[in-house]
Amino acid sequence: MAGRIEKLFGIKYPIIQAGMIWCSGWELAAAVSNSGGLGIIGSGSMYPDVLREQIKQCKLATEKPFGVNVPLLYPDIEKHMDIIVEEEVKIVFTSAGNPATWTSWLKERGITVVHVVANTKFAKKCEEVGVDAIVAEGFEAGGHNGREETTTMVLIPMIKEVCGLPLIAAGGIGSGKAMAAALCLGADAVQVGSRFAASVESSAHENFKNTIIQTGDGATELTLKELVPVRLIKNAFYHQVQEAYKRDASVEELKALLGHGRAKKGMYLGDLEEGELEIGQVSATIHEIKPAGEILKEMVEEYNYVIGKIETL
Amino acid sequence: MAGRIEKLFGIKYPIIQAGMIWCSGWELAAAVSNSGGLGIIGSGSMYPDVLREQIKQCKLATEKPFGVNVPLLYPDIEKHMDIIVEEEVKIVFTSAGNPATWTSWLKERGITVVHVVANTKFAKKCEEVGVDAIVAEGFEAGGHNGREETTTMVLIPMIKEVCGLPLIAAGGIGSGKAMAAALCLGADAVQVGSRFAASVESSAHENFKNTIIQTGDGATELTLKELVPVRLIKNAFYHQVQEAYKRDASVEELKALLGHGRAKKGMYLGDLEEGELEIGQVSATIHEIKPAGEILKEMVEEYNYVIGKIETL
Repeated sequence: MAGRIEKLFGIKYPIIQAGMIWCSGWELAAAVSNSGGLGIIGSGSMYPDVLREQIKQCKLATEKPFGVNVPLLYPDIEKHMDIIVEEEVKIVFTSAGNPATWTSWLKERGITVVHVVANTKFAKKCEEVGVDAIVAEGFEAGGHNGREETTTMVLIPMIKEVCGLPLIAAGGIGSGKAMAAALCLGADAVQVGSRFAASVESSAHENFKNTIIQTGDGATELTLKELVPVRLIKNAFYHQVQEAYKRDASVEELKALLGHGRAKKGMYLGDLEEGELEIGQVSATIHEIKPAGEILKEMVEEYNYVIGKIETL
Repeated sequence: MAGRIEKLFGIKYPIIQAGMIWCSGWELAAAVSNSGGLGIIGSGSMYPDVLREQIKQCKLATEKPFGVNVPLLYPDIEKHMDIIVEEEVKIVFTSAGNPATWTSWLKERGITVVHVVANTKFAKKCEEVGVDAIVAEGFEAGGHNGREETTTMVLIPMIKEVCGLPLIAAGGIGSGKAMAAALCLGADAVQVGSRFAASVESSAHENFKNTIIQTGDGATELTLKELVPVRLIKNAFYHQVQEAYKRDASVEELKALLGHGRAKKGMYLGDLEEGELEIGQVSATIHEIKPAGEILKEMVEEYNYVIGKIETL
């Protein structure tokens, strides 16, 4: 029986591919959508022209639903939103900001709106302002994250207590068993980032993909909490940040150290030392670069195996 | 069908009550064991004489199996171990140390040994030195914790990849749905701390129990990483620690600030401001003080409900 998220988006499996800067262009989004999940173009790393071209390519590559992720801290966001409407994108995931800002505007234009949260306060806010579904993202997730540090295991039941919206669990989910766990916790669907970052169709640099599949436990940390908290691989750049902390660097110094283009340098251009490498803890259990369709198929198979095998007491 | 952990301990349900300083004396351990789980006396806060008396009382209060938890950083540990053998305790959980130190000694005396780990390195070590089962404890757990910050959602599958021992998941688990999630991830059983800290039979001060049921999201943090990382409620003492960090305090200053008896002051004597209040993130979803047997019964019922309802795709 199709669940709330499958019905909302018109998809076969309750698996959403996370919109990730420098990793999720149209190739990845179309591959996931064509395999029965929901593919998402991550617009956070794209100039307006690039985003338009990516959406056009995605429409050519799939007839299935797909979405666009828009981080609300993006400076040129009005242009992005106009392009999304002009290109008739039907599903928008907003993140890193207040859901009140864009939800009505998007809904008035017939767009399904999903907002990413990491705490109960914003989950309640989403319900108030008419968001259609939420992603609740745990501490273990890669990239930008909440300050409360609540993990997926705790966050999903906590959010369910205060918010009745369809709920997509994110953070630490890259396998069928983690998907089964998330649905047991009360989620309607899962959002998968790191596992798809290391897919064939990911637009990440090969160096970064190869790094993802080689990381072990303790390889990442949520840092730069004075700016926007972000989970990074502990490479040379990360250690520069830690040195800055040791000398009690100001927020301005941290901003200067981060500079511009660190994420592109690391994830898209493959500079593993000076670049910013955003990935989740779950990368420690990812060992192979695979086609996105295969990843999705294996997740569904493993999910069915786990659910079929588990017994009541 | 009974799983590996039920068989190993001779218990009905795969639910272990965590050994917690100042919370888990014989009343709680016996209540959990009498309800079909495994009760644990937390010896970390006990003088040798107290531990002996607690074990004696527990044997009078239940004929079911129970265990004793011994943090390996405890100074008077030889006396504790001798008492455990003299009083014929059959199950010992060791934590906060190297499993190589005591496992052989305990095994030679016919005792089942379980060790608590937070990373793959020590999980492998446990298998090498002949430990019978492991607890893998995620970042969200209360009290002392690992430096890798790996969450339960990621830790359980990660440990399963490298260690074939019976596996007990800990961290973020205080409900039947979280228990279902943990078993989907590959755990054989769960260890539950915070939920039992707020039970009628917990030896914690009423002030602390009432605080546990009132915390919301973001109320705890893993701090004091320079000493032994510990998850605490953000009370006045916690803020003193954060002030110390701001003035770049040395490890010696942090030790002096922590001082002696902080945990007793907070959790046992009920000083909510100057005491150390160790609890897990899951406290945000705990809203009522209940008898331990009722907690266990509700967990099993909710687990069965969740497992009965979830469908394959």
